Amino acid sequence: MANAADYKHEFFNVSFPAEYVAHVEINRPEKMNAFKEIMWLNLSAIFKKLSHDPNVRAVILTGAGDRAFTAGLDVQAASQGQLSSNSGPSDSARKANGLRRHIFEFQECITAIEKCEKPVIVVLHGISYGLALDMCLACDIRFSTNTTAFSVKEVDIGIAADIGTLSRLPHSVGNHSWVKEIALSARVFGSDEALQHGLVSRVYKDKKEAVDEALKLGELIASKSPVAVLGTKEIINYSRDRTIADGLNYTAIWNAAMLQTQDMKDAMLSGIQKTTPKFSKL
Amino acid sequence: MANAADYKHEFFNVSFPAEYVAHVEINRPEKMNAFKEIMWLNLSAIFKKLSHDPNVRAVILTGAGDRAFTAGLDVQAASQGQLSSNSGPSDSARKANGLRRHIFEFQECITAIEKCEKPVIVVLHGISYGLALDMCLACDIRFSTNTTAFSVKEVDIGIAADIGTLSRLPHSVGNHSWVKEIALSARVFGSDEALQHGLVSRVYKDKKEAVDEALKLGELIASKSPVAVLGTKEIINYSRDRTIADGLNYTAIWNAAMLQTQDMKDAMLSGIQKTTPKFSKL
Amino acid sequence: MANAADYKHEFFNVSFPAEYVAHVEINRPEKMNAFKEIMWLNLSAIFKKLSHDPNVRAVILTGAGDRAFTAGLDVQAASQGQLSSNSGPSDSARKANGLRRHIFEFQECITAIEKCEKPVIVVLHGISYGLALDMCLACDIRFSTNTTAFSVKEVDIGIAADIGTLSRLPHSVGNHSWVKEIALSARVFGSDEALQHGLVSRVYKDKKEAVDEALKLGELIASKSPVAVLGTKEIINYSRDRTIADGLNYTAIWNAAMLQTQDMKDAMLSGIQKTTPKFSKL
Amino acid sequence: MANAADYKHEFFNVSFPAEYVAHVEINRPEKMNAFKEIMWLNLSAIFKKLSHDPNVRAVILTGAGDRAFTAGLDVQAASQGQLSSNSGPSDSARKANGLRRHIFEFQECITAIEKCEKPVIVVLHGISYGLALDMCLACDIRFSTNTTAFSVKEVDIGIAADIGTLSRLPHSVGNHSWVKEIALSARVFGSDEALQHGLVSRVYKDKKEAVDEALKLGELIASKSPVAVLGTKEIINYSRDRTIADGLNYTAIWNAAMLQTQDMKDAMLSGIQKTTPKFSKL
Amino acid sequence: MANAADYKHEFFNVSFPAEYVAHVEINRPEKMNAFKEIMWLNLSAIFKKLSHDPNVRAVILTGAGDRAFTAGLDVQAASQGQLSSNSGPSDSARKANGLRRHIFEFQECITAIEKCEKPVIVVLHGISYGLALDMCLACDIRFSTNTTAFSVKEVDIGIAADIGTLSRLPHSVGNHSWVKEIALSARVFGSDEALQHGLVSRVYKDKKEAVDEALKLGELIASKSPVAVLGTKEIINYSRDRTIADGLNYTAIWNAAMLQTQDMKDAMLSGIQKTTPKFSKL
Amino acid sequence: MANAADYKHEFFNVSFPAEYVAHVEINRPEKMNAFKEIMWLNLSAIFKKLSHDPNVRAVILTGAGDRAFTAGLDVQAASQGQLSSNSGPSDSARKANGLRRHIFEFQECITAIEKCEKPVIVVLHGISYGLALDMCLACDIRFSTNTTAFSVKEVDIGIAADIGTLSRLPHSVGNHSWVKEIALSARVFGSDEALQHGLVSRVYKDKKEAVDEALKLGELIASKSPVAVLGTKEIINYSRDRTIADGLNYTAIWNAAMLQTQDMKDAMLSGIQKTTPKFSKL
Repeated sequence: MANAADYKHEFFNVSFPAEYVAHVEINRPEKMNAFKEIMWLNLSAIFKKLSHDPNVRAVILTGAGDRAFTAGLDVQAASQGQLSSNSGPSDSARKANGLRRHIFEFQECITAIEKCEKPVIVVLHGISYGLALDMCLACDIRFSTNTTAFSVKEVDIGIAADIGTLSRLPHSVGNHSWVKEIALSARVFGSDEALQHGLVSRVYKDKKEAVDEALKLGELIASKSPVAVLGTKEIINYSRDRTIADGLNYTAIWNAAMLQTQDMKDAMLSGIQKTTPKFSKL
Repeated sequence: MANAADYKHEFFNVSFPAEYVAHVEINRPEKMNAFKEIMWLNLSAIFKKLSHDPNVRAVILTGAGDRAFTAGLDVQAASQGQLSSNSGPSDSARKANGLRRHIFEFQECITAIEKCEKPVIVVLHGISYGLALDMCLACDIRFSTNTTAFSVKEVDIGIAADIGTLSRLPHSVGNHSWVKEIALSARVFGSDEALQHGLVSRVYKDKKEAVDEALKLGELIASKSPVAVLGTKEIINYSRDRTIADGLNYTAIWNAAMLQTQDMKDAMLSGIQKTTPKFSKL
Repeated sequence: MANAADYKHEFFNVSFPAEYVAHVEINRPEKMNAFKEIMWLNLSAIFKKLSHDPNVRAVILTGAGDRAFTAGLDVQAASQGQLSSNSGPSDSARKANGLRRHIFEFQECITAIEKCEKPVIVVLHGISYGLALDMCLACDIRFSTNTTAFSVKEVDIGIAADIGTLSRLPHSVGNHSWVKEIALSARVFGSDEALQHGLVSRVYKDKKEAVDEALKLGELIASKSPVAVLGTKEIINYSRDRTIADGLNYTAIWNAAMLQTQDMKDAMLSGIQKTTPKFSKL
Repeated sequence: MANAADYKHEFFNVSFPAEYVAHVEINRPEKMNAFKEIMWLNLSAIFKKLSHDPNVRAVILTGAGDRAFTAGLDVQAASQGQLSSNSGPSDSARKANGLRRHIFEFQECITAIEKCEKPVIVVLHGISYGLALDMCLACDIRFSTNTTAFSVKEVDIGIAADIGTLSRLPHSVGNHSWVKEIALSARVFGSDEALQHGLVSRVYKDKKEAVDEALKLGELIASKSPVAVLGTKEIINYSRDRTIADGLNYTAIWNAAMLQTQDMKDAMLSGIQKTTPKFSKL
Repeated sequence: MANAADYKHEFFNVSFPAEYVAHVEINRPEKMNAFKEIMWLNLSAIFKKLSHDPNVRAVILTGAGDRAFTAGLDVQAASQGQLSSNSGPSDSARKANGLRRHIFEFQECITAIEKCEKPVIVVLHGISYGLALDMCLACDIRFSTNTTAFSVKEVDIGIAADIGTLSRLPHSVGNHSWVKEIALSARVFGSDEALQHGLVSRVYKDKKEAVDEALKLGELIASKSPVAVLGTKEIINYSRDRTIADGLNYTAIWNAAMLQTQDMKDAMLSGIQKTTPKFSKL
Repeated sequence: MANAADYKHEFFNVSFPAEYVAHVEINRPEKMNAFKEIMWLNLSAIFKKLSHDPNVRAVILTGAGDRAFTAGLDVQAASQGQLSSNSGPSDSARKANGLRRHIFEFQECITAIEKCEKPVIVVLHGISYGLALDMCLACDIRFSTNTTAFSVKEVDIGIAADIGTLSRLPHSVGNHSWVKEIALSARVFGSDEALQHGLVSRVYKDKKEAVDEALKLGELIASKSPVAVLGTKEIINYSRDRTIADGLNYTAIWNAAMLQTQDMKDAMLSGIQKTTPKFSKL
């Protein structure tokens, strides 16, 4: 079993509700789970550890409280930090370079979810604004609830979203008219639209049901060969960004090693014998 | 206010129905808004000017009359022009080079819509064939009506569509089975399919309602920071065509300059004070 | 008329139900059309021949029997072949190279469908597992029935799908949350989901109706200019994998030759005269 | 014969020293051929016209006077224009967008040389600083003289070269250590280094000899099939930027049209008969 | 030892002058080794077999006779085949498609050299025109002699070289001014230029010495771990066409399997013990 | 002045021989500067710090002692670590994943040199094997001496080089025949070849002279605008890996921010006044 003590980070609860399943909860409900800088650094630390933890095969990401997955960036905190005009150099070019470094650092924290070797299922409930989109688009599977309120909020604070939403949306959702509509207008939309246009794949009646179903799916995935699951996530991500010819070639190289696993024989045998296979740790 | 006199071009009406919102109307209703060469040249001239016009922050594109957004290329006119077999050199290679130049020129006119720095919302009503698809796919947001009749018409006149439809469709719509189906069969389809499969994001009961809603969305977008809106369009377009890693890097470089805007402070302050921010011109 | 005798291959029936339309039927119904190595080699041989056959302009791909399009790889046969741990070299690197060669060979057989110059319409009915996905994603247009049962089955046998599913899914379907969900869980899903999320473009009540409609669509496509149809398939495939700018440039080069066809004049004339054009063979 | 009157532009001399050969001379010798904004606009206009002029098959680009091909940007003029801090908006983001537009416009003028369908041979003599590199790297063939003094001068005026040098150098020269050395140090180097490391392909003793040899090469190229020459330039440029597989595919599409030329038969026949082929105009 | 009888193909001699080294000789000296269609088909068959032959670890490619590596395409034979204007369909588009298929087929034959898993060292002597360039650029290592006469001959017969030269040259040679110069002028050049600008890496005094040295190098490479050699060729080819980040990632996936080889331990031990390692077959 | 105390890491000496110039010396001369795991971790830590240190504008990388820049990986140490067959899981797939993680970690350490915002000049002297190539290819400018002995040593220990050499060589050196020759044979070569084929840009008579000249060049670069220098490195690296069109676009976005620097005015003024400009810190 993974050791919860290894995952103590401020503003996050990490638990292990089932074998090989981790549950990461954003925990700042009194502020609608709004993000301060320390939070994205902690998020990154958690997902980097989960990525290599042999006791973890699937991850659930949720937000604490009833009201919000996250209301996004804690603008008040941000306005006192790097983005404040009073800090830093006066030369525009030097200021630009400082911002570039800062954005990269922030992006890398969110990308830690995408780079996590284990699949990540996110449950979006209640207010899910701004950074909620950046984060959920770095996850593999997106669930929501009947009362989720989404918004690509950034244009309302005068910026083009820069932590991943605008780069990942057109690679995650098929209807690009809708992608532009929500990104340019910042309007709030619900799970019906999110499902219709393909931002989420499941909508549940409330947070409890959604989290329960996410855990079930997590358990299901965790019951599979971790070698097969790792490869499936990796090859889809690689292929999404490249030509089909490149994707096929990569798959062949990848599986040249991975087909040599004992899991394949165990899985086939279990299939024939109608037993549940047990796979060794990754 | 933008100066309508600057936008006088045959077969087009350009008006400014609200502050910072331009309305471009294709105006050849007696021919179902079918396109002759002069029309695509004029279209390009209009969008190049809108792109840099500081008084414009959002654009609506519609077709005049009740019957058609556009019936497509004016085949009769085209058959007397470049595409006619009687014109040009007899050598196949030289003819090929002439055609290549001609296609490039035509493509660039349509691409002027995509390159326009300001978001473009198109309303497709009635007959929307051939060039209607090429054009609407270069726009950012697509609305249609209950009576819109779409067709990727080109295979019916013996050609593979060459002004953008075949290149932009697979990057605009998620269901590639449907993309191939409509492109290979040239069959007419309606707004129900267009919405279901993701070609449009909104369907309204008739042209009037659709145009009204497009104008409302245009006004909403025009009320945002023009710096944020410009970046949102540009970064989505860049990212759509590239890997997520490249998209993130581009976003960081872009925002290194653009986060230095006064708009951000004004937008945040307005958010807190519940006032409407006023942004200076781009 | 194409010569059926040229297409005799074990486990396949190839017929020509209408002018210029070929029907390829996977024919191993007693084993749910499960694939052995000889079958994918034969599949490839058939599609390579169809690609250049001047008497073929559209292809339908179906599975024989009521129960399955295909249950996927014949695992029993496979376990006695290349993938068996007892065969081949003991050195892991040499084994990896052998697997790489083997996967390439298998992938190329399936890719023969994608490379076929003529559009391929697939009808998925009944059990459609594993290799069913690999194959149908290499086809151009996907139809299914009310009772089709789909599954990306590979993780259940301990492998990341390696014959194309993971590379083609994210380029065929817009909802990437759903793509990951089905690929990571191996769960069975039906045509409702397949249609909703964009894996198929049409669902019919049963196999008979679906095959009839596929044939009708095949006939419709076969009635068009084969030059225009060839170009439409090729340009969409090229553009899908590349930037829009690259897609446009390719289109221009392609059409520089292809617009010099007599088909264009014949098609236009037929349009004016309300007659059915006859196009010469490709 | 091309009509010199069509090519009258301030600061340039355009002549036609041999059949099908154009000679473009930068003509501001009293200022070491330093470039003002009007000059790059004129340069672009000239090369766009040469690109489609049927009487032109090869182009020579040189600088007037003994002292310089060009000393680069006329910094004095530039400092009074767009780049001046006193002009334009005070908001950094708006200023950035203005600069972006301005750089694009300037880049496109230089890229007109690369996009010219006819090969361009440049002769670099004397001072060849800054913009001299941007321009010569957009040309196809580079000659220089024993006294040419090169410098990637931009870091000395506080900027990263932005009109093409930094993008084209690593695709034109094999030794990337040397590329970085000259770009980061701005040091002056001579033709010996330029030849050794691959920036030029020929060094002549003085400007006269170099121009004479460039003209001879221009005449030689102009004596070839213009279809073959056009394709050779285009395919090399396309392939340089892409994978070899993509390059091969593009070549096949290109030549599908271009091999249908009469030139091939004429060239082969002339080869056999030892006569000089005459090719019709492009 | 590889079985020479497996490699009997008209116009080629295949021998095995040393353990694990194959020598392929183009054998039509009475026609300066000019290529007819059957020859490139045979060339492809030979290299496909060498690629998987466990008794081969390095390949030498040479031309028989004193006068020529190859004078290129046998134009006389070609003019009676596919390229002849009298054959094939009269419609330009259909003719274009036929040419496209034909060029692909020819390209694939030459690409078989590049795809061969074993390194290929080519010795260019005497006349090395046209196809000589296409072929040698698909090889890994290029040697020549003091009397080699190179020419990218295609523009002289009215075509842009289409079997690989124009796609591979800019990825093989650093000096792009020289690349364009030789490709656009078709002028003959010698080994001094070929070495100076980077087309070959070694020049020997005559064919005998060059072949001897190629064999020595072949023997040296064949003495290394075939796993390491295979990976080195493959990773360089992959990386050449892609970003460095993609190259690094591919390397990691590749070596994840390949570092598990016994060869590594054997090689290290031999290094320490100063013995010659023996590696098992690939 | 940078604080040397911040840069204390075992096996490295970091000093600041001139204003804004850092000197990193690999310091394990008694083992020919062979690398153990702790060394590449320390190297990475040093270059990450240098990247953002406002007191550093150029970096020199050298090896301590007379005999070697580095003899490469400390094979003895490595054979007791991760690469040892006795460690880690017995399942080939799990072992592969462990190796993949390990290679990524090692690659990222070396890539820290490439990602360092400041230019890095490397001096290769004496034995420069294996990892010496990986490292120097991640540097910007390469100098060597008359007695440097280079070798891409990896095939001699049974592996394809995996820390960057095979990915970076074809993007750093123009002569690909030579690239393959040295990578496949592992033969030792000297500075004459390294200069001729473009691996280094300068060869000096001995280490002392080479280091002195590297320091001079470092001082020269450090005297330029740090904004201009940063952009020059970044844009060349970006453009090297992408199409020229993408490179130009990136340059425009980059300079939209960076041209707003005070450095440009200061540099121009200094140019006119013949004074030495002083630029503020980055």
